[in-house]
Amino acid sequence: MTDRYAEHRRVARDLGVDAIALVPGFNFERLFNARFGSHERPMVIIIPANGAPVALVPNLELLSFAELGFEGRVFDWRDQVGYTDAFTAMAAHLPLKSLAVEGQVMRVFVHHALAAAYPGLRIVDAEKQISGLRLCKTEAEIAALTRAIRLSEAALAETVAEVKVGMTEKAIESLLVSALFRNGAEGLSFGSIVAAAGNAAMPHAHARDVAIKAGDALLIDFGGRKDGFAADITRTFFVGHADDRAHQVYDTVLRANLAGFKVTKAGVTAHQIDDAVISVLEASPFADYIRTKTGHGLGRDVHEAPYIMRGNHEVLAAGTVYTNEPGLYIPDEIGVRIEDDVLVTDGGCISLTQYPKTLTVIG
Amino acid sequence: MTDRYAEHRRVARDLGVDAIALVPGFNFERLFNARFGSHERPMVIIIPANGAPVALVPNLELLSFAELGFEGRVFDWRDQVGYTDAFTAMAAHLPLKSLAVEGQVMRVFVHHALAAAYPGLRIVDAEKQISGLRLCKTEAEIAALTRAIRLSEAALAETVAEVKVGMTEKAIESLLVSALFRNGAEGLSFGSIVAAAGNAAMPHAHARDVAIKAGDALLIDFGGRKDGFAADITRTFFVGHADDRAHQVYDTVLRANLAGFKVTKAGVTAHQIDDAVISVLEASPFADYIRTKTGHGLGRDVHEAPYIMRGNHEVLAAGTVYTNEPGLYIPDEIGVRIEDDVLVTDGGCISLTQYPKTLTVIG
Repeated sequence: MTDRYAEHRRVARDLGVDAIALVPGFNFERLFNARFGSHERPMVIIIPANGAPVALVPNLELLSFAELGFEGRVFDWRDQVGYTDAFTAMAAHLPLKSLAVEGQVMRVFVHHALAAAYPGLRIVDAEKQISGLRLCKTEAEIAALTRAIRLSEAALAETVAEVKVGMTEKAIESLLVSALFRNGAEGLSFGSIVAAAGNAAMPHAHARDVAIKAGDALLIDFGGRKDGFAADITRTFFVGHADDRAHQVYDTVLRANLAGFKVTKAGVTAHQIDDAVISVLEASPFADYIRTKTGHGLGRDVHEAPYIMRGNHEVLAAGTVYTNEPGLYIPDEIGVRIEDDVLVTDGGCISLTQYPKTLTVIG
Repeated sequence: MTDRYAEHRRVARDLGVDAIALVPGFNFERLFNARFGSHERPMVIIIPANGAPVALVPNLELLSFAELGFEGRVFDWRDQVGYTDAFTAMAAHLPLKSLAVEGQVMRVFVHHALAAAYPGLRIVDAEKQISGLRLCKTEAEIAALTRAIRLSEAALAETVAEVKVGMTEKAIESLLVSALFRNGAEGLSFGSIVAAAGNAAMPHAHARDVAIKAGDALLIDFGGRKDGFAADITRTFFVGHADDRAHQVYDTVLRANLAGFKVTKAGVTAHQIDDAVISVLEASPFADYIRTKTGHGLGRDVHEAPYIMRGNHEVLAAGTVYTNEPGLYIPDEIGVRIEDDVLVTDGGCISLTQYPKTLTVIG
């Protein structure tokens, strides 16, 4: 029988720790094909390098948890009693001296509960190694991500067809989100960015109750979720018309985006891709307005490894998906970003995003 | 001039720690009236018991951060360089021996970065005290929450009007979410639960591609966000018809919900409310099917203090908002939950939720 924990046990052995802890989140979801909330209730799975796993589960979740076919002991706890005793009982059942955790997922209250139940426990942040198991996507995972991207593109096309001068950023966001769910999204990858003119110069801007005007750049960064995977797409449109400077900025960003595609194939490093992309921006008259790296890995999480930036000499393998999203951000004037979701292959790469990226005037 | 950090400084002094750390999340949002993402990039505000605050901010966020009018030194860091040096510089600028953090918000990687920059730092989980500042809502906050609830109720009414036997749970969820944004939601409070028959017996069920049948109970637990606040409402409908047992279960849950309203006023404890509500369920023929406490605080976060459960002898003050959401969950058969958002007042309480809760047959 296959051990579904084999790769986690290998990570534990490679790190020289007794076990791996998973809390609800994307690593958990990939392993069990099930999603659990978290909030104020701790829930932890501990997978030792050898032997049966154990779980600490809120009583409220026991019925859902039973569907996972979990192989080990389960220590449940009720809201009325609290979780301290369950952690203690778990520690008595499975003593540990060292434990690797997902440092960007586990929160401090769970860290403290583990530290209290296991005096002297060495807690290692193994975010990179544990989430690293998600780096190379399977064919089924790429198909799910592609479904998320297709429905997101359909929603964008329907939204853009309705945009008119004078609409607010918030009204456009509302159209977009409705279109995403209408097209089958199970959720939003993240809070969409719909930002015009100077607001688009804020890389993580939020939509405002401000009307778009002719001549504005309109940046839309968004995505829908499907079958556990998250699309992440940005297109920048121009409302009514685009002046020469807008063309120049846009063309520069587009050339940077295309340079990323040209250099991508299995075996290149994240550094090499970012260097190819950012060099185009640096060689332009807009070099002062670079504020971001090329992009980030994409999959179940909308921001995951590998981070496509200079200094990251990680070699990309076939099956990796990353966002190629160069941008230029001129304060109080304009923000342009073009973002595609790129699948790394042996010979090169494939853009999973197919929405056109030639300069487009709308409204 | 008013010190906007006064209450945080007071918490630090009460706890006997040198400072409070805030990371992006609801406490941060309440203090600065601004929202920041977080993901893989640490961002921390440190508010000392006395003296100027400091901030550690990703370079990418500097423009947005500048809008906060932050009063202290800012240590920014770039993706290409990493954040270790910025933490070290911050520690040199503001030495600390003890620090209170939001244990349910701060993640382990930030905890580790702080611990590395401040050797010997005592890190205290002060989730309760820091988030406790959000317990009593102002009039403006109650107005915002009420707007979130009204738009959610409008969305529910529009959705229910379209439900027909044979629709899948997922199709109903999609109708609901579209209606939320159409009615002005800025986002979803949480991933909606739309669950029929046995699936509704799972308190945190997800919508499935399964069609609803005549005689099913259909549980809908959902909410939209508005102006920073999150609605959280559950209604349970019956598809086509409701048999005697369905009526009995529903009436029991409704009586429990009403018992909660009857006992609520400023000065009672969370324990007293839960005891009043759960006692009704316990005295019924369905006592074996109680799986949850009465509810939780509601505001910017959809699950916040106070937790309305036996054993929590916290006294509720006027201005507190909590969810009154008793339920009965009979495995493989039926789940019924009725959830209102309740504002505690001096003389009693007000249901911010106004959607009818008499047994309703739909489809």
